[in-house]
Amino acid sequence: MTRQELIQQIKEKQSFLCVGLDTDIDKMPKSLINQVKKEYEEEELTFGMLLEFNTSIIDATAPYCVAYKPNLAFYEAYGMDGIAAFEGTVEYLQENYPHHMIIADAKRGDIGNTSKMYAKTFFEQYGVDALTVAPYMGEDSVTPFLGYKDKWVVLLALTSNKGSQDFQLTEDAQGERLFEKVLKKSQEWGNDENMMYVVGATQGQMFQDIRKVAPNHFLLVPGVGAQGGSLQEVCKYGMNKDCGLLVNSSRGIIYASSGDDFAEVAAQKAQELQQQMAQELLAIL
Amino acid sequence: MTRQELIQQIKEKQSFLCVGLDTDIDKMPKSLINQVKKEYEEEELTFGMLLEFNTSIIDATAPYCVAYKPNLAFYEAYGMDGIAAFEGTVEYLQENYPHHMIIADAKRGDIGNTSKMYAKTFFEQYGVDALTVAPYMGEDSVTPFLGYKDKWVVLLALTSNKGSQDFQLTEDAQGERLFEKVLKKSQEWGNDENMMYVVGATQGQMFQDIRKVAPNHFLLVPGVGAQGGSLQEVCKYGMNKDCGLLVNSSRGIIYASSGDDFAEVAAQKAQELQQQMAQELLAIL
Repeated sequence: MTRQELIQQIKEKQSFLCVGLDTDIDKMPKSLINQVKKEYEEEELTFGMLLEFNTSIIDATAPYCVAYKPNLAFYEAYGMDGIAAFEGTVEYLQENYPHHMIIADAKRGDIGNTSKMYAKTFFEQYGVDALTVAPYMGEDSVTPFLGYKDKWVVLLALTSNKGSQDFQLTEDAQGERLFEKVLKKSQEWGNDENMMYVVGATQGQMFQDIRKVAPNHFLLVPGVGAQGGSLQEVCKYGMNKDCGLLVNSSRGIIYASSGDDFAEVAAQKAQELQQQMAQELLAIL
Repeated sequence: MTRQELIQQIKEKQSFLCVGLDTDIDKMPKSLINQVKKEYEEEELTFGMLLEFNTSIIDATAPYCVAYKPNLAFYEAYGMDGIAAFEGTVEYLQENYPHHMIIADAKRGDIGNTSKMYAKTFFEQYGVDALTVAPYMGEDSVTPFLGYKDKWVVLLALTSNKGSQDFQLTEDAQGERLFEKVLKKSQEWGNDENMMYVVGATQGQMFQDIRKVAPNHFLLVPGVGAQGGSLQEVCKYGMNKDCGLLVNSSRGIIYASSGDDFAEVAAQKAQELQQQMAQELLAIL
């Protein structure tokens, strides 16, 4: 997916919502589990539950979002069944919702020949549009992901968690913080057409500082909802002329109800966010 | 595996070698592939090739090493077959070589609830002894891996690749470099019985600086061989009274021969390193 296509989708849907698919069988409604037990073979139950939950959530929320972000940790936790369900979810999206961006949230990054393997896996084999990447190992750990047409690296810059303060805010002798160095240095490797940054919604006014260094890039913003970030604050300080934001919500949407109405409630929660986003977009579109 | 058990193994084998299982079907000898084609069903060929290669390498090198390090990128690249082969390799080691440490090289790290999922996957489901973890996201991205008895976090500190210079060497206003900050800060979360650090063999005299901050910890040292690091230099500057080193070689051992003799040549290469290590160990054991 190109930057222009993404911007086009944001305009059409009046939304810059990304729905995080942190899919967890322990949090699924019993009715879904029972339905899967009827329809799937014994050895495919785990796969079935993950896939049926995801496709239900996707069908319900697709009108209100422009991207989906499966979190690999949740699929890997179920071993081969989980990987099959991740693959099935990606295929389902590609076939039914080809204009939604698929962001694999896997936070990969290793020496060059290893990052190259991860890039092949996610961009060639699964064919996702974007992958989250950790910057600690520097240039040759990131550039293998950048050689793919219309694919994106989503590089960690300033994350939403408490631990973001441990290293990301460290100032060098010139007063430049580590996350700013990551933003600057990485612009020597990629550009605003193949690289985004993760910036947590919990970082509030720090978005102003981010925009000084990366005015044009899209930012993937987790932390609205369960982690306590404010959409209004993110937009006030982080939005640029092309929107430049993908705001993610995972638990706040997909587990908003643990009852039989989980998909409808997920749709409501996604729509509520979409409507707030439409208001914010009035400022620029 | 406890620290004492690891030290005991190093003494018994006179080796601190870790063999990296970066298993790649494109680099396997034709004879192995043909053998697998005879013995496995069509749909199990990929799984069979990965597993047969690994078990051959393991049987050949086990007398000369104390640890194995499967690199997850190489298994994930083959999808579900690769994950099955990773799982099969771990089980093979657990059943046949229970005193060898298994280090899953996956460089994970995410917000707390996600790191918790990765920890469950690797430590509970697969039951490996250790996992490589990236430090960028700070405390709550690392601590979920530390609550497991006799399991280890192997935290990235100063890596072997060129990109290690981009961020890891950044000095703060007090002259402390990022890798030193990672070493110091992480000692508030774990100790030398549940945490090791990745320090590249290519970093030479930097091992002196590492030992000032982390005198007792074990260091996992990649980069000997294909990446150009020197074993003698690593030992000179990095060894402590308990050895404190696990030196990894991947490509230099497992692909030393691409012929039918791949396992024998791997054994020779491992034995050569073991003999050099025995010499180095004379200084302390």
